[in-house]
Amino acid sequence: MAQSLHFSISHSCTESNARVGRVETLHGGFDTPAFMPVGTRGTIKGLTPAQIHETGSQIVLNNAYHLMLRPGDDLIARRGGVQKFMGWDGPILTDSGGYQAYSMSDINSIDESGVTFKSIIDGSMIHLSPERSIEVQNNLGADIIMAFDDCPPSVEPETLNESRKRMGTKTGATTGDQHRDRLQTAHDRTICWLERCVQAHGRPDEQALFGIVQGGPDLDLRKASVEAICNIELPGYAIGGVAVGEGPEIIRQVVEFTAPLMPEAKPRYLMGVGYERDIVDAVRAGVDMFDCVLPTRNGRNANAFTKSGPKRLRNARYGEDDAPIEADCDCYACSKGFSRAYLRHLFMSKEMLGPILVSLHNIRHFQRLLLDIRRAIREDAWSFLFRTWPVLDAPAPRDDEAEIQDEVTPGSPGMGMTGKGRG
Amino acid sequence: MAQSLHFSISHSCTESNARVGRVETLHGGFDTPAFMPVGTRGTIKGLTPAQIHETGSQIVLNNAYHLMLRPGDDLIARRGGVQKFMGWDGPILTDSGGYQAYSMSDINSIDESGVTFKSIIDGSMIHLSPERSIEVQNNLGADIIMAFDDCPPSVEPETLNESRKRMGTKTGATTGDQHRDRLQTAHDRTICWLERCVQAHGRPDEQALFGIVQGGPDLDLRKASVEAICNIELPGYAIGGVAVGEGPEIIRQVVEFTAPLMPEAKPRYLMGVGYERDIVDAVRAGVDMFDCVLPTRNGRNANAFTKSGPKRLRNARYGEDDAPIEADCDCYACSKGFSRAYLRHLFMSKEMLGPILVSLHNIRHFQRLLLDIRRAIREDAWSFLFRTWPVLDAPAPRDDEAEIQDEVTPGSPGMGMTGKGRG
Repeated sequence: MAQSLHFSISHSCTESNARVGRVETLHGGFDTPAFMPVGTRGTIKGLTPAQIHETGSQIVLNNAYHLMLRPGDDLIARRGGVQKFMGWDGPILTDSGGYQAYSMSDINSIDESGVTFKSIIDGSMIHLSPERSIEVQNNLGADIIMAFDDCPPSVEPETLNESRKRMGTKTGATTGDQHRDRLQTAHDRTICWLERCVQAHGRPDEQALFGIVQGGPDLDLRKASVEAICNIELPGYAIGGVAVGEGPEIIRQVVEFTAPLMPEAKPRYLMGVGYERDIVDAVRAGVDMFDCVLPTRNGRNANAFTKSGPKRLRNARYGEDDAPIEADCDCYACSKGFSRAYLRHLFMSKEMLGPILVSLHNIRHFQRLLLDIRRAIREDAWSFLFRTWPVLDAPAPRDDEAEIQDEVTPGSPGMGMTGKGRG
Repeated sequence: MAQSLHFSISHSCTESNARVGRVETLHGGFDTPAFMPVGTRGTIKGLTPAQIHETGSQIVLNNAYHLMLRPGDDLIARRGGVQKFMGWDGPILTDSGGYQAYSMSDINSIDESGVTFKSIIDGSMIHLSPERSIEVQNNLGADIIMAFDDCPPSVEPETLNESRKRMGTKTGATTGDQHRDRLQTAHDRTICWLERCVQAHGRPDEQALFGIVQGGPDLDLRKASVEAICNIELPGYAIGGVAVGEGPEIIRQVVEFTAPLMPEAKPRYLMGVGYERDIVDAVRAGVDMFDCVLPTRNGRNANAFTKSGPKRLRNARYGEDDAPIEADCDCYACSKGFSRAYLRHLFMSKEMLGPILVSLHNIRHFQRLLLDIRRAIREDAWSFLFRTWPVLDAPAPRDDEAEIQDEVTPGSPGMGMTGKGRG
C-alpha cells in the first residue's frame, strides 16, 4: 500500500518540544514547522502560483466549503483535482468545510447526521455530513484532507467579543452550563464523525486524512479528545477549536497542554493560528503546521507585518517615506525597493497592486519567521530569534490595531481577540 | 547638448509606409512599431513590473492627469520621478492630461489660458494650462512627454454613440457648423499651446516632448495641423483626436492620410488606438507607437483577445473547458496551462487573479502582434501575418461585443464605436 504522507523529524529542540522535520506527499514535500497561506477559493487572492513559490511557501490551503459551493467539487474532480485546477504543483491541504459551515452560514440544523445550512451563493439548502465532506475532499484531491468536526465557539457566549457577536453565529442565549454541554456534545460528535470520515475516505493511499482534537478551553476535555482522536490511526492530527473567539493566553494554554499529548511521530497541525508569538509558542509546544489568513487578509487592508510590529501603510506618515516596508526583507516588494510612499499611493487609489505587494510581503514575513524558527531549533538559536524578531516580545495586537476585516467574504467572522481564523 | 531621444529606422517595408526601428531614451529603448500598455495611476492594474516585463512590454504609459491629482506630481518629483516611484526601469511616456480633463471631468471653462475643471478626487477646481501640464510632466520625469492639446470630440455631436453621450462630456447642443468651428478653434489653439509647451519645457535634454497633430476627421484641417505642428522641431509627433467617438473607417482614413505627411525621421505615435486591425493599418501607414487600454480594461472584464477573435471567459460554455485561453500563446496564463474553466471560476468568484491572468494574456497578445508586425516588415511576411492572425480579417467588434466598461474610473468614457481610448 502506497503511503499518502511521510513525516520525518531531523532535529529535536534541546530546550522545548519543538522539532524540525519534513512532510512528503504525492505532490511534493514541505519543511516543518510549516506555514500554509490560505487560498480559499482555489487562489491566494491576487497572487500567481509563481509568486506564491517566490514567497517560499511550499504548501497552500484551500477551503472545501467554498469550492464545493463554487465551482463544485465534482467539476474540479473532472478537471483532474485542485492542484491542476489552480496550477499549483506543490502539496495542498483542504479544510473540511465544517468550520465555514458553522461560522459563515445561516445554519438550519445541527444533529448527528451533520449540518444543514443555506448556501452563501444561491441560498439553497446544503447538507454537510462527515461522509459528504470526505466525498468533497476526495473530489478536490488535496494531499492532506481534514476530518469533518463539530466546531462550536470555544468560549462562553458572554465572553465573546463584539466582532464575534456581530457575525451572527447562532450561539443563542446559552448559559455557562449549556455551553459546557455543547462542548461535550461537540467532543463526542467529533469522535463519532471521525470514525465515519475514516470509513468514507475513498482515497487513503493518495490523500492523508488528519483527525482534529476538540475540547475548547477545557483541558480535561482536550485530554479526552486527544486520547479518543489519536487512538484512531491516521497520518496526522490537528488541534482545532482554537482561534475561534478566545484570547491568546487561552490558545497558548490549550496548545501547550494538548500538543505534547499527541503522537510524537505524526505531524501536528494547529488550525487557524496566528500571530508571530502564537506560532513560536506553539512550535515550542511541538506543533509542526500552521495556516492563517492574517498575511493575506491584512495585506489586502494595507497592514504590513514587520519584525518589529505591524505598519498601517494607509497612514499619512508614509506619504513621503522612500523606505521599503522593511529594510532587510527579501520579498519581492522590499527587495525591488517599492517605497511605503508608493504602496500608500496604491491603497489610496484602490489599485490592486497594493494588496498584491503587501500580501507578497506578509506571506514572506511568515515564511521568514518559519525559516528562523527552524534554524532556532536546529542550532539552539532561540535567543537569536527573539533578538531579531522584536515583535515576539510585543503584546498581541488588539482586534482594532492589526486586523481589519474586509468585505470580500460574506459573513466573514470577526475572529476574536487575536484576530486569527481558519481560512 | 544631450539628446533626450534617439530614433533609428532599420528596415522599411517595400510595399507600404511601415518601418521597423528603435527608440532610445535615458531609461532604455524600445523596438518600433511598439505597443505601450497603459498604467494610468503609476501601475498597470494588478501587474508587478516583473510581470509587465514578462509580457514583452518595453515602455509603458502613465497619465499625468491622474498622477497630478493623486499623489501629486510634486510628491513624485521628490521621490525621484515616476520610473523610480513605480519601480519600472524602462522608458515611460506620460499623456499631457488634456484628454482626461476633457473626457472625465466636469469642465468649468475652456479658453486660451487652458482648461478649468473639477478634481475627480475632491471636487476642487483645477486649472490645467500648457505651462502647468509641462510642469507636471517635468515633475513626473517620464522619458517621453506629450504636448497639452485641445482635444474635442472629433465627430459631430449627433453621431456620437450612446455610451459617449452617457459620459456627460459637455459637447452641448452644437450644430454641424458650430462643431466645425470648434475643430478649427482646437486646431489653432493646439498650435499656440504647443509653442507655449516648448517654451515651458524645463528638461528638454532628458525628456522628449512630442507635438500632437489634431484636426478631427477633416483632412484639410489635418494637413494644416501637420504643417504647423511638425514645423516646430521636436523629437517626435503624435496623431491625436482619433479614437474619441468616430468609427474605425474614419480612423483609418485619417491615419492613412496624416501619417505619411509627418516627418519620416521622427517617431510617429497614434494615440489611444486600438484593435488589432487598426494597429496593422496604422503601421502600414507609417505609425511607430501605440497605446491602448483595451488589453487591460477588457482583461479585467474577462474578455480575452486571441488571434481568431475575442473570448468572453464568463460564458458558461467555458465552465468545463480545460484548454488555455489560446493554445499557442506563450503568455504566463497560457503557457502554465491555466484553463478557461479555472479562469471562469476566478471571474465568477470575483477573484483578483482572473483580471491579472487575462490582463497578462491580453498584453502579451498585443506584444505578439507587434512582434509579428515587425517580422512582417523585415521579411515582407504580410501574408504570413494575415494568415496567422485571422482576427485581422474580422470586422471590428461592436462596443457591446468586445469591450465592457468597468467601474474603476469615475466618468470613464464609453469611447466610441471601436472601443478604444487614450488611457
